[in-house]
Amino acid sequence: MTRYKIEIEYKGTGLIGWQKNDGGTSVQSLIEDAIFSLSGQRVDVYSAGRTDAGVHARCMVAHFDLDETVKEYGANTVMRALNFYLATKPVVILNAGIVADDFHSRFSCLGRSYKYIILNRNANTALDKDLVWWCARPLDIDKMKLAAQKFIGTHDFTSFRSSQCQSKSPVKTLDSLEIVQNGDRIEINVAARSFLHNQVRNIVGTLVEIGSGRDLDIDKIFAAKSRCAAGITAPPVGLYFMSAKY
Amino acid sequence: MTRYKIEIEYKGTGLIGWQKNDGGTSVQSLIEDAIFSLSGQRVDVYSAGRTDAGVHARCMVAHFDLDETVKEYGANTVMRALNFYLATKPVVILNAGIVADDFHSRFSCLGRSYKYIILNRNANTALDKDLVWWCARPLDIDKMKLAAQKFIGTHDFTSFRSSQCQSKSPVKTLDSLEIVQNGDRIEINVAARSFLHNQVRNIVGTLVEIGSGRDLDIDKIFAAKSRCAAGITAPPVGLYFMSAKY
Repeated sequence: MTRYKIEIEYKGTGLIGWQKNDGGTSVQSLIEDAIFSLSGQRVDVYSAGRTDAGVHARCMVAHFDLDETVKEYGANTVMRALNFYLATKPVVILNAGIVADDFHSRFSCLGRSYKYIILNRNANTALDKDLVWWCARPLDIDKMKLAAQKFIGTHDFTSFRSSQCQSKSPVKTLDSLEIVQNGDRIEINVAARSFLHNQVRNIVGTLVEIGSGRDLDIDKIFAAKSRCAAGITAPPVGLYFMSAKY
Repeated sequence: MTRYKIEIEYKGTGLIGWQKNDGGTSVQSLIEDAIFSLSGQRVDVYSAGRTDAGVHARCMVAHFDLDETVKEYGANTVMRALNFYLATKPVVILNAGIVADDFHSRFSCLGRSYKYIILNRNANTALDKDLVWWCARPLDIDKMKLAAQKFIGTHDFTSFRSSQCQSKSPVKTLDSLEIVQNGDRIEINVAARSFLHNQVRNIVGTLVEIGSGRDLDIDKIFAAKSRCAAGITAPPVGLYFMSAKY
């Protein structure tokens, strides 16, 4: 058995997300199909994060195994061959490598980072369609930055997780949450060992509501331990899985 | 008669370019149709630049006139109404304003700028599909920067213009040509009062050939006054009309 680690860029528009499911095309199924075309083997591909429908990745990490009945493919061959089979799909393999059998893209992961991009201007966008969240109402970036600091550190994030979240504990530690404004573009960069389902989108939605004038107190929202206490869920369109640390 | 100036963002993918033509959908025809939907008037829209098929614009400037049989629309009404009618199209009106009758988007223009974006890495891209030129071969940025300096100033650009170029003179003055590298992204920013047909794409194609090791001497290419002396025409996909100065 040989274990391969791959790094993947994908555009989530029109996909049902990372995870395979009968409901549509997933990143996972597209990659598993490409591996089958390359090797003749039906394998499971495991990833560092399972992004939702419409969410993108600049660099998702995943792994899969090929058994010894096929010759050991060099890392470069795997990358090129998978990209050949994925050519018409919104998925690109950025890198591939052979790793130790005990490497696990999900369980060995020490940290994950996400970026959320907001376009804050009067007019919508043609060039960044499906790639940013367009917010027409002017956002007060200083208010957002002030509120953002409250999220850093260890908290019970019950108010910021989806009702479908399967995590045992709602307690998570946010290592950083940085807001960068560049003209009419606002980028929110978040890093943590792991995240709850919809945690980033719920934090972003709450920050945007604060930026547009709603009076929300993050401490009180944490204390309420209720999803209803926080702001809206930001749409998937502006969210990017950026990196996984090992 | 009221003259309106508009600023436009568009994604050129799948369009035949700025100019209307029976061969397909143009940016000009999409905007003229939207103006008709708004006002009931069939007008001509004039732009600062006429981009080719597949070329994008971050901020194209154009103007059109509406006659007095319709009430004078406020600038904000024009912007919102045109965007309403363009909602499903890859064209967005960023700003609109009422200008003097002697303003002309093309003839009053004092300077134009373009950006060309190259993605220089092993793997293609999913997220920036149709928005960058993917060059897999490593480019020597220093060689490109050295050659780039040769283009600045006034030259006979015969070797860098399309055979279909209708400009009377091949002599043009390039005000600036700047190459910026940011990771695997190379951006080439060019500014001039005006450009010849395909001039930016031919300069970029030549610079990329130089960056990938071809021994080309810009002085000799200028002297040859022949399109064959220069490098390839870079594809439209990476080119953006950025701004027009008045």
